[in-house]
Amino acid sequence: MRLFAAMAFLPGGWAPDVGLEVAPDGTIVEVQVGAEPGDTEVLDGPVLAGMPNLHAHAFQRAMAGSAERRGAADEDFWLWRGAMYALAGTIEPDGLYELARGVYREMLVAGYTAVAEFHYVHRDPRGAWYADKAATGRALIEAAKDAGLAIALLPALYMQADAAGTPLAPRQRRFATSVDELLAIRDALRDAYDGDDDVVVGTAAHSLRAVSAAALDALADDDARGAPFHIHVAEQEREVAEVLAATGMRPVQFLLERHHVDARWCLVHATHVDDAERAALARTGAVVGLAPTTEANLGDGLFPLRAYLADGGALGIGSDSNVSLSPVEELRWLEYGQRLATRRRVVAATVDGESCGEVLYARAAVGGAQACGFAAGALAPGRRADLVVLDDRHGPLAGAPPGEVLDRYLFATDRAAPRHVMVRGRWRVRDGVALR
Amino acid sequence: MRLFAAMAFLPGGWAPDVGLEVAPDGTIVEVQVGAEPGDTEVLDGPVLAGMPNLHAHAFQRAMAGSAERRGAADEDFWLWRGAMYALAGTIEPDGLYELARGVYREMLVAGYTAVAEFHYVHRDPRGAWYADKAATGRALIEAAKDAGLAIALLPALYMQADAAGTPLAPRQRRFATSVDELLAIRDALRDAYDGDDDVVVGTAAHSLRAVSAAALDALADDDARGAPFHIHVAEQEREVAEVLAATGMRPVQFLLERHHVDARWCLVHATHVDDAERAALARTGAVVGLAPTTEANLGDGLFPLRAYLADGGALGIGSDSNVSLSPVEELRWLEYGQRLATRRRVVAATVDGESCGEVLYARAAVGGAQACGFAAGALAPGRRADLVVLDDRHGPLAGAPPGEVLDRYLFATDRAAPRHVMVRGRWRVRDGVALR
Repeated sequence: MRLFAAMAFLPGGWAPDVGLEVAPDGTIVEVQVGAEPGDTEVLDGPVLAGMPNLHAHAFQRAMAGSAERRGAADEDFWLWRGAMYALAGTIEPDGLYELARGVYREMLVAGYTAVAEFHYVHRDPRGAWYADKAATGRALIEAAKDAGLAIALLPALYMQADAAGTPLAPRQRRFATSVDELLAIRDALRDAYDGDDDVVVGTAAHSLRAVSAAALDALADDDARGAPFHIHVAEQEREVAEVLAATGMRPVQFLLERHHVDARWCLVHATHVDDAERAALARTGAVVGLAPTTEANLGDGLFPLRAYLADGGALGIGSDSNVSLSPVEELRWLEYGQRLATRRRVVAATVDGESCGEVLYARAAVGGAQACGFAAGALAPGRRADLVVLDDRHGPLAGAPPGEVLDRYLFATDRAAPRHVMVRGRWRVRDGVALR
Repeated sequence: MRLFAAMAFLPGGWAPDVGLEVAPDGTIVEVQVGAEPGDTEVLDGPVLAGMPNLHAHAFQRAMAGSAERRGAADEDFWLWRGAMYALAGTIEPDGLYELARGVYREMLVAGYTAVAEFHYVHRDPRGAWYADKAATGRALIEAAKDAGLAIALLPALYMQADAAGTPLAPRQRRFATSVDELLAIRDALRDAYDGDDDVVVGTAAHSLRAVSAAALDALADDDARGAPFHIHVAEQEREVAEVLAATGMRPVQFLLERHHVDARWCLVHATHVDDAERAALARTGAVVGLAPTTEANLGDGLFPLRAYLADGGALGIGSDSNVSLSPVEELRWLEYGQRLATRRRVVAATVDGESCGEVLYARAAVGGAQACGFAAGALAPGRRADLVVLDDRHGPLAGAPPGEVLDRYLFATDRAAPRHVMVRGRWRVRDGVALR
């Protein structure tokens, strides 16, 4: 298949008259700048790589907007977590499939072409295993396949209630896994989806609160495939204090000292890092997974983005609790949070590009693809043809010079609504409508 | 005209089976709870008061997304202002009309039913007066009328380049006005739109940077009609320092000590206030005009919302530079900014209601209407029938219990897209489409 775009955002920036040769397996095999439209499909708008969503808990969409009420004098993350547990306590695989398929379809329509599902609801509502231990994970993968986007399914280890090793509470019983059980789930799913180019099966540790140091040692280093390994870390200040009390180290410091943190790793949130942690983390090649709308909703705080970008660190974005399914709002507020904190403008563009929109989009697409374990995130040979065609017929993108397209898309567009979305060479959204 | 809603958000909260009797002039004359649909128009979704947009500079929409690039080592508000001046230097009344009509129509489709236009581009591009001194203001009013929403036009006094009284720079020449000129513009527009229920003509002082103390004395107290009076204040820390150096007082302190700040006043931004200023301001009955997306875009900082709400202060929202035209995003990030700063959830609901969405929406609608000078902002007798009908057929609002409708609208909806919008008893948007 050959595609032609009058304007495409390549790793070096916007280029005119771009021809994309896509192999039957959906991989881009050639990118030609200054091509002729010729006998090819002409893409009718500016073309970008699709955005990977590196961190989502699909089921939490069912409570979006339902936990914004006063429930106690001292509302915080931990009370929100209680509401989330109540929801997590009831959902069954069939319902999870239906819910997730709808959420994934909305993500796709908004321009996300892959999702990493950080998955920890393993057992049935009573805490027993389903006959198929991988039942819930399988429901999520099927939902993504039927919605039409790529998925990195990350079964998450969850063993204990806090960093001191307190046993799980009854409301956490569905999450309970041993390392062996988790690896069995992972391997069952790998067998089931062997050869499926739209499915990656990695692993996750829920957090340093929820796994023991020994279990983390066993899990983090056990993956002959080198698939992604994710962990929630340093999201809340209380969590930092808890880990410090239990280990004598801050959470990110602990990971960096005990583990070979590398490009397989995605540290989700990493909100509360000190300067030394932040600088060391940037050198590892790991991706920091940021979820600006969820982190704001939960009152987590702000990651030191400005300094981390200057360090050259890798990052990506996730919709996490799915209060927002808009990559535009995530990226805009990733930048805006820094502006509010530093009282400066144009934070991301102080680093490796001149346009905030281009720096943020390009970094998050590449980092997100790495964290999902797909060769995607850029329009380049060897990468998947996961792409979006923006709608520049009206609104802020109409008449935009190339250098402003991504700034206008991220900073002046109320809704992330690409005109068309392609996943691995197949159209999944045409004129704003999901095809499946 | 009689309207019936199965569910309407009244000043006391959500009520079932609400009948609204609307007089021919568009005023609500009766609100009946527990009504029968009978021979009335049935509104097919949850019904709310429309949101007034208390602060906008329509022309700045033309640069939304165009100032997100690195232009200097030290990007900040003041460099952004330079770009804005370049744009302001070129626009003529006809172009202003076209631009503003488009922007106002987008506001209306997003659920804003009135706009206060803070208007300071008075003269022609060379700095001479148009034959009609009110030409640009008239263009804005006509744009609003043709778009179909109500407008409070606020011609703004602009006299000097800084609080020390430095003369205007050449690039500020279009803004130059004396008090007498400004009052002449005001009075000409009042004559022209006398008896038009959708037009209020108030006044504004650009800021304590741009007007002298004597001129502010003359302007602020000269309005026999008691129409709205707005001023930009304490948006940037440098501005606070400048006013402190020139007057020995902080900006809000200066206003409170020298003027009878009352319910006519709208203090736009008021970002940098100390505890004493904030508490005193809350007692005046004046409205604080907050513009969360613009204030984030410009790196202004965060207003101390949590404490101000506890003080009982009045507030509303504005789209200001029009980087966002979504009241949902403004209100969501008004709350989220506080959560990030305080590391707590559910900030607005710690005050006078249980739902963050309800507290924020109700307060901003009432405060916004006050600042615009319209009897609107709530579904109540004597107020205008400015209302929106939400779309609860799909997405987060589908199946929402009444107590969650506004939380889901503000915190789980990516796009502000009411199904229908009515302004003073006339449908202006039906099924998401502007009718004019």
